[in-house]
Amino acid sequence: MNDKRKRFFLAEADIPSQWYNIQADMPNKPLPLLNPKTKQPLKAEDLFPIFNEACSLQELDTEHAWIDIPEEVRDMYKFYRPTPLVRAYGLEKALDTPAHIYFKNESVSPVGSHKLNSALAQAYYCKKEGVTNVTTETGAGQWGTALSYACSVFGLELAVYMVKISYEQKPYRRSMMQAFGAQVTPSPSMSTRAGKDILTRDPLCNGSLGTAISEAIELAMTTPNCKYALGSVLNHVALHQTIIGLEAEKQMAMAGEYPDKVIACFGGGSNFGGIAFPFMRHNLSGERQTEFIAAEPASCPKLTRGKFEYDFGDESGYTPLLPMYTLGHDFQPANIHAGGLRYHGAGVIISQLLHDGLLRGTDIGQNESFKAGVLFARSEGIVPAPESCHAIAATVREALKCREAGEQKVLLFNLSGHGLIDMAAYDRYLAGDLQDFIPSDEELHRTIGQADALQ
Amino acid sequence: MNDKRKRFFLAEADIPSQWYNIQADMPNKPLPLLNPKTKQPLKAEDLFPIFNEACSLQELDTEHAWIDIPEEVRDMYKFYRPTPLVRAYGLEKALDTPAHIYFKNESVSPVGSHKLNSALAQAYYCKKEGVTNVTTETGAGQWGTALSYACSVFGLELAVYMVKISYEQKPYRRSMMQAFGAQVTPSPSMSTRAGKDILTRDPLCNGSLGTAISEAIELAMTTPNCKYALGSVLNHVALHQTIIGLEAEKQMAMAGEYPDKVIACFGGGSNFGGIAFPFMRHNLSGERQTEFIAAEPASCPKLTRGKFEYDFGDESGYTPLLPMYTLGHDFQPANIHAGGLRYHGAGVIISQLLHDGLLRGTDIGQNESFKAGVLFARSEGIVPAPESCHAIAATVREALKCREAGEQKVLLFNLSGHGLIDMAAYDRYLAGDLQDFIPSDEELHRTIGQADALQ
Repeated sequence: MNDKRKRFFLAEADIPSQWYNIQADMPNKPLPLLNPKTKQPLKAEDLFPIFNEACSLQELDTEHAWIDIPEEVRDMYKFYRPTPLVRAYGLEKALDTPAHIYFKNESVSPVGSHKLNSALAQAYYCKKEGVTNVTTETGAGQWGTALSYACSVFGLELAVYMVKISYEQKPYRRSMMQAFGAQVTPSPSMSTRAGKDILTRDPLCNGSLGTAISEAIELAMTTPNCKYALGSVLNHVALHQTIIGLEAEKQMAMAGEYPDKVIACFGGGSNFGGIAFPFMRHNLSGERQTEFIAAEPASCPKLTRGKFEYDFGDESGYTPLLPMYTLGHDFQPANIHAGGLRYHGAGVIISQLLHDGLLRGTDIGQNESFKAGVLFARSEGIVPAPESCHAIAATVREALKCREAGEQKVLLFNLSGHGLIDMAAYDRYLAGDLQDFIPSDEELHRTIGQADALQ
Repeated sequence: MNDKRKRFFLAEADIPSQWYNIQADMPNKPLPLLNPKTKQPLKAEDLFPIFNEACSLQELDTEHAWIDIPEEVRDMYKFYRPTPLVRAYGLEKALDTPAHIYFKNESVSPVGSHKLNSALAQAYYCKKEGVTNVTTETGAGQWGTALSYACSVFGLELAVYMVKISYEQKPYRRSMMQAFGAQVTPSPSMSTRAGKDILTRDPLCNGSLGTAISEAIELAMTTPNCKYALGSVLNHVALHQTIIGLEAEKQMAMAGEYPDKVIACFGGGSNFGGIAFPFMRHNLSGERQTEFIAAEPASCPKLTRGKFEYDFGDESGYTPLLPMYTLGHDFQPANIHAGGLRYHGAGVIISQLLHDGLLRGTDIGQNESFKAGVLFARSEGIVPAPESCHAIAATVREALKCREAGEQKVLLFNLSGHGLIDMAAYDRYLAGDLQDFIPSDEELHRTIGQADALQ
């Protein structure tokens, strides 16, 4: 491969100056968020008590396709962006496939994942609006780490509710947040009403993202000058992540190719939307017919087995009602080791796009996922995050299809993060200790739809 | 800093095609390696039973200043090289210093450190010479991880002896090596005579690099078609690492500056030599007067408190006698948490250069080291390896001198690796649990010089 380029770099000057807001181009706009009491559509002002104003406005903006990235945020992007686009020659060889496989390497971010793209933006807006304290939740820990660093950069105090089982299983994640100066509390905790309610019902509760979100929102709403920040699911988070796809689009052009399929793992949708939306705009304009594949864990299958209905974003019902593919807001995924991707619902934009047939979900068992991750580690040298392994597994499936059909498709996936802080999960996989959890139909949708707007 | 460039990238085509062999330019060549029995200087052929032939020849090459990088190795370098040179604006601001601080970011290597630069070369040469099995040792785990991946790339079987205390304290490192397909054994083990000898004397022995080296060499010498590989100390390892400084030199030119001081942490010398030697050649030619600072742990102070004498490279005396600054080959550093940088001696080239006044050592306590690491993490976003923290601490000292003197010096240090797999050590630092260990004079030099050639 002497004359073949392995990695495609952009100059700092080529960091995009705007994010792409797909809401402006969607054929069917997302349904409105609803006030759970009145069932009336929410306006941006209704979100101000929880979120900073800039993000609240972005959340509901269906008009502007392009939104300026503040110069201060773009300056911080320079600490790790543009990230490389990599041709996965090693993986292609290992699979003996005619497919051309590319990945966008977001694992080179200093905190190890794409999450920093939105963390820096949210922390910046909070600082600019005079906020002093921020709260959030974290599951696998990638988001909490990213926001800890971002708050350190912009001089904000951060309190993180970390899903208890992750807090116990991933002490290094906790350490990283503390090294960046954040305060980390295992959730459920006794520090909020939401936490107390759950702990009195179930003292041994392992926690869930939905619960941790409730605790973080409650703390934000009861603390002066404090806002809540979320790392996925919401529209403004996916907006900030479009920097991934916008860079990748330029880099694919450098490689002289255009993806036939764009693949990402799926938790709440921000890493998927981040890489997919900029390419999808060319589908929406009729110019391209790229296929978009969201790889979710079979243990938390909202895209493939969820229902499209209004549901809460958190366990305790503090959030507005969101129109989304959901498994029910009290859904507790089995204790899988891919700690991420455990959220019960899909983001509002993604849900509408899925409903409209513009993307498809695919579910991956955790053994298939880790098998693909180990193959990738050995062939490309990077140990992927357990979350990212789902994207790799979906890519492997497509590459093997290409081999069978003798087709030279161009596949692009997002390597959302590295797995260096998740080696315990690899240990269990290599020891043959991992089981595939497929929830029964009875475990899904135990909560009834909160509004009938979608029925 | 809108118009200021944060990171300086080279194109893949700019990856150097040759390594720089400083031995050819040294005013005083290194003293010869000696056969411990005959005290006669060794020839390259004498090394062939242990090392692959290409590396053996490089080890003793004092003639060729430039040595071609094999195309297959350069192709693998493209997986992560060129690495960025970064202007540490965040750290400069935190220190309020007029100094311009740059760092070469070797932590972006897929295995997280510079070690891969030599691992790929050594694995390639072994493969090319028909070797099937490789043995090595690892302390903190960075080298073992790098060689595990490199052996996976070139299809070699690898057995790693991992210092027992690291094996127990760093399970993630072990997992990474296993994920890459290596066999990992805690050292001392009962699988070698060297290990048995030590375990029968001291059944609870925590292990040391010197012991693990003895075990790895013994296994190589008693296994057909098997060679041993070392991750630092030796001349050919530092040679492979000069890719760091050669890239940095081009990148400093892009930044329009030249370093007044080049700083790296110091264990055996490969990361220090890697960044320093290419710049030092301009000192040797009289063109520049850069200062070179090697930052070693105060707990293992061979540069600042060692003696320049012939000593063994391993505990059991399997290696040739090496002319080096040493603390004695049975020196056991206190159980500090910066697991790396614990080797008892300095590489042969470095030792001669130190003796000739071309570099200086400085010793750093582990609390000062971690304090600098946390400052760096919060200001630049990257959690540095405990080893690299020593380089940062030495850089901080120099930057503060600049502040006091009002001098705008240009400082360049090597960020040899990230610390994401060493968070337990950060935990202990943040909890105030770390102590600074300074060995007493009695603990040093308990072994008598093995030859009087330097007396």
